[in-house]
Amino acid sequence: MKVFVLGGDGFCGWPTSLHLSRLGYDVIIIDNLSRRNIDNELEAGSLTPIQPTGTRLRVWQESTGRKIVFHNLDIATNYHRLLTLIKDERPEAIVHFAEQRAAPYSMKSAYHKRYTVNNNLNATHNVLCAIVESGVDVHLAHLGTMGVYGYGTAGMKIPEGYLPIEVTTDTGEKVHQEILYPANPGSIYHMTKTQDQLFFAYYAKNDEIRITDLHQGIVWGTNTEDSLLDERLVNRFDYDGDYGTVLNRFLMQAAVGYPLTVHGTGGQTRAFIHIQDTVRCIQLALENPPDRGDRVRILNQMTETHKIRDLAKLVATTTNSEVAYVENPRKEDPENDLHVRNDLFLDLGLNPTTLSTGLLTEVTDIATKYSYRVDLNKIPCTSVWTSKHFAGIPNQTSKGNN
Amino acid sequence: MKVFVLGGDGFCGWPTSLHLSRLGYDVIIIDNLSRRNIDNELEAGSLTPIQPTGTRLRVWQESTGRKIVFHNLDIATNYHRLLTLIKDERPEAIVHFAEQRAAPYSMKSAYHKRYTVNNNLNATHNVLCAIVESGVDVHLAHLGTMGVYGYGTAGMKIPEGYLPIEVTTDTGEKVHQEILYPANPGSIYHMTKTQDQLFFAYYAKNDEIRITDLHQGIVWGTNTEDSLLDERLVNRFDYDGDYGTVLNRFLMQAAVGYPLTVHGTGGQTRAFIHIQDTVRCIQLALENPPDRGDRVRILNQMTETHKIRDLAKLVATTTNSEVAYVENPRKEDPENDLHVRNDLFLDLGLNPTTLSTGLLTEVTDIATKYSYRVDLNKIPCTSVWTSKHFAGIPNQTSKGNN
Repeated sequence: MKVFVLGGDGFCGWPTSLHLSRLGYDVIIIDNLSRRNIDNELEAGSLTPIQPTGTRLRVWQESTGRKIVFHNLDIATNYHRLLTLIKDERPEAIVHFAEQRAAPYSMKSAYHKRYTVNNNLNATHNVLCAIVESGVDVHLAHLGTMGVYGYGTAGMKIPEGYLPIEVTTDTGEKVHQEILYPANPGSIYHMTKTQDQLFFAYYAKNDEIRITDLHQGIVWGTNTEDSLLDERLVNRFDYDGDYGTVLNRFLMQAAVGYPLTVHGTGGQTRAFIHIQDTVRCIQLALENPPDRGDRVRILNQMTETHKIRDLAKLVATTTNSEVAYVENPRKEDPENDLHVRNDLFLDLGLNPTTLSTGLLTEVTDIATKYSYRVDLNKIPCTSVWTSKHFAGIPNQTSKGNN
Repeated sequence: MKVFVLGGDGFCGWPTSLHLSRLGYDVIIIDNLSRRNIDNELEAGSLTPIQPTGTRLRVWQESTGRKIVFHNLDIATNYHRLLTLIKDERPEAIVHFAEQRAAPYSMKSAYHKRYTVNNNLNATHNVLCAIVESGVDVHLAHLGTMGVYGYGTAGMKIPEGYLPIEVTTDTGEKVHQEILYPANPGSIYHMTKTQDQLFFAYYAKNDEIRITDLHQGIVWGTNTEDSLLDERLVNRFDYDGDYGTVLNRFLMQAAVGYPLTVHGTGGQTRAFIHIQDTVRCIQLALENPPDRGDRVRILNQMTETHKIRDLAKLVATTTNSEVAYVENPRKEDPENDLHVRNDLFLDLGLNPTTLSTGLLTEVTDIATKYSYRVDLNKIPCTSVWTSKHFAGIPNQTSKGNN
């Protein structure tokens, strides 16, 4: 089966490409290397020594005999080449990771807000539009986020995408309906994913495109069984204030003997998944596509939830570190509970890697092993959500407005 | 009070600019003339002889002594100039009409879908982003559409933007919430307006921007009391298959002695409002802004609903014409009811012009008077919603893909 992996050089895309390639999929990576270029802009980089895409693909072929094709292409701006590739290659599935994916980066400045909106929305729409124009019956699997739900769930377990509601008609009759879960995004980045959902709902309805939207939690872990085959296949480990997710920042702080910095009370509850489970979930999604004419198939791609302060304590205990509480740069409720359904993936056979079993590997094999490469200045988050926050901190990079 | 009218040269924007100018507002029109340029692309034009923007503004000043300033600017692509104008002029309000507004145009081809998405979403986001970056406390009034609600209303009167729902928690408790009415757009154009709603909800929440979103019905009528002051101030009258709304097509067909073409059974119910009421609604919205920190204020801007076949009969009776039923190019339910709340504008003092009183003026003073300018080939709608429709009709213009 032929599959395009859009954003296949990135943190989730690269191990997904390897996993699908090993399973026998004919993988074509499409990526404009924007994530590597943003490293240049931020003067930051992966803790792990990731190799150029060409090296990665050569090593993969030498190690496994499997060939992955790579096209350096910006799908948000070069519609025609994307269309031509779909027409020529006729993929059965497209996995779409090709969006700017960091909430703090999306809040850095007007430039970063506008880049995230323009890039993410045009990328997603171009893929949908090209599938329709090509006439190829492609199954599109998109990486969404748990953040589309927001965190005000009124004591209710978050369902998988759709919410059963009851409305009262003019004649007083109660009517049951199922609606897309009301969006409540917490950043410009998350907002674009809620807008993606409206693209998907429309194209599934009007053009009967087969679409799976994966509402993913925070991904942790670095390597998968495939990327461990050779050190030159190593995956990204981001620890900077924009792209480093909370667990990676904790691991990095622990590895260099710093206190783990918790924003606010650390009462925010978040959903997590290991990168090895991410790639299995993509496989399961591709093996179980919706039918033509179905509504968008939405699955919650997460395996456990933790309060941030509990996560900090877990890492602190594992690594013998301290925890420090600092002001929260985000505009959000200080405390929230989060209960999430993930029955669909468990029913499909997902057998999760939990933090309690996988955390020590990250500490020793990644954070400590590569700690000589760290740039300590990059760990704090300097993006702020509104101008009222941190009036004293110089606001952002000087990337131009145009 | 200083106000920007984005899209102030268009069908709604022009009479709004005149109305606000006459009331004493200091009006600055920002427009890239995209609607006039699309006339060139479609080889179509207004039935009424609209004048160049410069002529319009000169005549307005000669007639009333009021000056309107005009900047030819594409807000979707020239963020920095928009930002500079807001910083320099510090408007108290911005009225935002600057989006591609025809559903059939948005469905013509991949190019037109992509143009509509890229133009409308970046235009709206740039305005919001620029308001935040400028630090000016602007009230943004946006023209949305009744089409965001969709037409499957389960026997319920459509509320003004927000839907009260009841959800059941894990402990079996019933919880009441008010959510943004679940979106169900019927075209790419309508979809962009549902995505705009998510921009507004986010910026109202995160940055406390004051926003009014006007969910407008189909606008009919051509002139307002202001545009009647001089024939050179005349407003657009579009009758072509893409931009001509259903009533204008009927009027034009009647004026040239053709049968009125109804799509499908004509059982689709739509909401309507006269252009004179549109401009009064904008005025009322500007006079009654939400407070900082409020959720988006949503008002339904319509005054009556009609089934399309009843509208055809009304025009046919008034003009002594025939009605003809043709295949529907849209993917939609053949019949729907539509009950809409519009209490908010009525409470603010709106006194509507109804079709029963205003229709004859349109027949005699517009459609018949200017019928010598008609291009009969432009009346049929040639845009189709999916490739399954009208396999025999050549699909669309040859505007390029890139």
